[in-house]
Amino acid sequence: MAQYMDVHHGMQGITADQLREAHQADLAIEKDEGVHFERAWADPESGVVYCLSEAPSAAAVQRIHERTGHKADEIHAVPLSV
Amino acid sequence: MAQYMDVHHGMQGITADQLREAHQADLAIEKDEGVHFERAWADPESGVVYCLSEAPSAAAVQRIHERTGHKADEIHAVPLSV
Repeated sequence: MAQYMDVHHGMQGITADQLREAHQADLAIEKDEGVHFERAWADPESGVVYCLSEAPSAAAVQRIHERTGHKADEIHAVPLSV
Repeated sequence: MAQYMDVHHGMQGITADQLREAHQADLAIEKDEGVHFERAWADPESGVVYCLSEAPSAAAVQRIHERTGHKADEIHAVPLSV
Protein backbone atom coordinates (compact mmCIF):
# COMPACT_ATOMS: atom_id res chain seq x y z
CA MET A 1 0.00 0.00 0.00
CA ALA A 2 1.19 3.49 -0.79
CA GLN A 3 -0.19 7.00 -0.77
CA TYR A 4 -1.41 8.63 -3.97
CA MET A 5 -2.48 12.16 -4.85
CA ASP A 6 -4.76 12.36 -7.85
CA VAL A 7 -5.82 15.51 -9.63
CA HIS A 8 -8.97 16.36 -11.57
CA HIS A 9 -9.18 19.42 -13.81
CA GLY A 10 -12.21 21.12 -15.36
CA MET A 11 -14.38 20.99 -12.21
CA GLN A 12 -15.18 24.71 -12.24
CA GLY A 13 -18.25 25.50 -10.13
CA ILE A 14 -18.13 22.29 -8.08
CA THR A 15 -20.20 22.66 -4.89
CA ALA A 16 -19.62 21.28 -1.41
CA ASP A 17 -22.49 18.84 -1.97
CA GLN A 18 -21.07 17.62 -5.28
CA LEU A 19 -17.64 17.08 -3.74
CA ARG A 20 -19.15 15.15 -0.83
CA GLU A 21 -21.32 13.04 -3.16
CA ALA A 22 -18.37 12.20 -5.40
CA HIS A 23 -16.27 11.25 -2.38
CA GLN A 24 -19.10 9.11 -0.95
CA ALA A 25 -19.49 7.32 -4.29
CA ASP A 26 -15.78 6.47 -4.23
CA LEU A 27 -15.96 5.31 -0.60
CA ALA A 28 -18.91 3.05 -1.39
CA ILE A 29 -16.90 0.89 -3.82
CA GLU A 30 -13.27 1.52 -2.87
CA LYS A 31 -12.91 -1.83 -1.10
CA ASP A 32 -13.33 -3.63 -4.43
CA GLU A 33 -9.83 -2.43 -5.31
CA GLY A 34 -8.31 -2.25 -1.82
CA VAL A 35 -8.25 1.56 -2.04
CA HIS A 36 -9.10 4.07 0.68
CA PHE A 37 -9.83 7.68 -0.22
CA GLU A 38 -8.75 9.77 2.77
CA ARG A 39 -9.30 13.40 1.86
CA ALA A 40 -10.27 15.60 -1.06
CA TRP A 41 -9.90 19.33 -1.65
CA ALA A 42 -11.53 21.44 -4.36
CA ASP A 43 -11.06 24.87 -5.88
CA PRO A 44 -14.36 25.71 -7.63
CA GLU A 45 -12.78 28.74 -9.27
CA SER A 46 -9.90 27.06 -11.13
CA GLY A 47 -11.77 23.74 -11.25
CA VAL A 48 -9.04 21.61 -9.71
CA VAL A 49 -9.75 18.77 -7.27
CA TYR A 50 -7.08 16.86 -5.31
CA CYS A 51 -7.77 13.45 -3.76
CA LEU A 52 -5.45 11.74 -1.28
CA SER A 53 -5.71 7.97 -1.05
CA GLU A 54 -4.01 4.83 0.14
CA ALA A 55 -3.97 2.18 -2.54
CA PRO A 56 -2.11 -0.80 -3.95
CA SER A 57 -1.48 1.03 -7.26
CA ALA A 58 -2.38 4.12 -9.31
CA ALA A 59 -4.39 1.85 -11.60
CA ALA A 60 -6.55 0.74 -8.66
CA VAL A 61 -7.26 4.40 -7.79
CA GLN A 62 -8.20 5.11 -11.39
CA ARG A 63 -10.53 2.09 -11.68
CA ILE A 64 -12.58 3.38 -8.72
CA HIS A 65 -12.68 6.93 -10.09
CA GLU A 66 -13.71 5.65 -13.53
CA ARG A 67 -16.55 3.55 -12.15
CA THR A 68 -17.90 6.56 -10.23
CA GLY A 69 -17.72 8.75 -13.32
CA HIS A 70 -14.81 11.04 -12.49
CA LYS A 71 -11.61 9.74 -14.07
CA ALA A 72 -8.48 11.45 -12.71
CA ASP A 73 -6.31 13.53 -15.05
CA GLU A 74 -3.13 12.81 -13.07
CA ILE A 75 -2.26 10.26 -10.39
CA HIS A 76 1.03 10.55 -8.51
CA ALA A 77 2.44 8.17 -5.93
CA VAL A 78 3.52 10.35 -2.99
CA PRO A 79 5.83 8.07 -1.00
CA LEU A 80 7.24 11.05 0.93
CA SER A 81 5.16 13.15 3.29
CA VAL A 82 5.50 15.38 6.31
CA MET B 1 -8.07 32.30 6.81
CA ALA B 2 -8.57 29.71 4.11
CA GLN B 3 -6.96 26.50 2.98
CA TYR B 4 -4.54 26.47 0.07
CA MET B 5 -2.90 23.70 -1.93
CA ASP B 6 0.31 24.71 -3.63
CA VAL B 7 2.23 22.69 -6.17
CA HIS B 8 5.93 22.57 -7.01
CA HIS B 9 7.22 20.92 -10.18
CA GLY B 10 10.75 19.86 -11.14
CA MET B 11 11.61 18.30 -7.76
CA GLN B 12 12.73 14.98 -9.25
CA GLY B 13 14.88 13.00 -6.83
CA ILE B 14 13.75 14.86 -3.70
CA THR B 15 14.55 12.84 -0.56
CA ALA B 16 12.64 12.46 2.70
CA ASP B 17 15.31 14.60 4.42
CA GLN B 18 15.05 17.35 1.82
CA LEU B 19 11.25 17.43 2.08
CA ARG B 20 11.44 17.60 5.88
CA GLU B 21 14.10 20.35 5.78
CA ALA B 22 12.08 22.43 3.31
CA HIS B 23 8.97 22.03 5.45
CA GLN B 24 10.87 22.97 8.61
CA ALA B 25 12.26 26.07 6.90
CA ASP B 26 8.72 27.13 6.03
CA LEU B 27 7.47 26.43 9.57
CA ALA B 28 10.29 28.50 11.05
CA ILE B 29 9.11 31.75 9.40
CA GLU B 30 5.44 31.08 8.56
CA LYS B 31 4.14 33.22 11.43
CA ASP B 32 5.57 36.33 9.75
CA GLU B 33 2.73 36.01 7.21
CA GLY B 34 0.10 34.33 9.39
CA VAL B 35 0.47 31.11 7.39
CA HIS B 36 0.52 27.55 8.70
CA PHE B 37 1.88 24.74 6.54
CA GLU B 38 -0.02 21.61 7.59
CA ARG B 39 1.16 18.80 5.34
CA ALA B 40 3.31 18.15 2.30
CA TRP B 41 3.53 15.19 -0.07
CA ALA B 42 6.21 14.46 -2.67
CA ASP B 43 6.65 12.22 -5.67
CA PRO B 44 10.42 12.00 -6.30
CA GLU B 45 9.80 10.26 -9.62
CA SER B 46 7.65 12.88 -11.35
CA GLY B 47 9.12 15.67 -9.20
CA VAL B 48 5.82 17.08 -7.95
CA VAL B 49 5.35 18.35 -4.38
CA TYR B 50 2.00 19.35 -2.87
CA CYS B 51 1.76 21.55 0.24
CA LEU B 52 -1.45 22.09 2.20
CA SER B 53 -1.65 25.27 4.26
CA GLU B 54 -3.95 27.63 6.09
CA ALA B 55 -3.27 31.22 5.17
CA PRO B 56 -4.76 34.67 4.77
CA SER B 57 -3.99 34.67 1.02
CA ALA B 58 -2.15 32.85 -1.76
CA ALA B 59 0.33 35.73 -1.83
CA ALA B 60 1.19 35.12 1.84
CA VAL B 61 1.89 31.43 1.07
CA GLN B 62 4.11 32.42 -1.84
CA ARG B 63 6.08 34.98 0.18
CA ILE B 64 7.06 32.27 2.70
CA HIS B 65 7.98 29.78 -0.04
CA GLU B 66 10.04 32.44 -1.84
CA ARG B 67 11.99 33.37 1.29
CA THR B 68 12.86 29.70 1.90
CA GLY B 69 13.98 29.25 -1.70
CA HIS B 70 11.21 27.12 -3.15
CA LYS B 71 8.67 29.29 -4.95
CA ALA B 72 5.44 27.45 -5.78
CA ASP B 73 4.45 26.95 -9.42
CA GLU B 74 0.72 26.93 -8.62
CA ILE B 75 -1.28 27.97 -5.58
CA HIS B 76 -4.99 27.16 -5.37
CA ALA B 77 -7.44 28.16 -2.69
CA VAL B 78 -9.30 24.96 -1.73
CA PRO B 79 -12.36 26.24 0.12
CA LEU B 80 -14.09 22.86 -0.23
CA SER B 81 -12.81 19.70 1.42
CA VAL B 82 -13.99 16.35 2.70
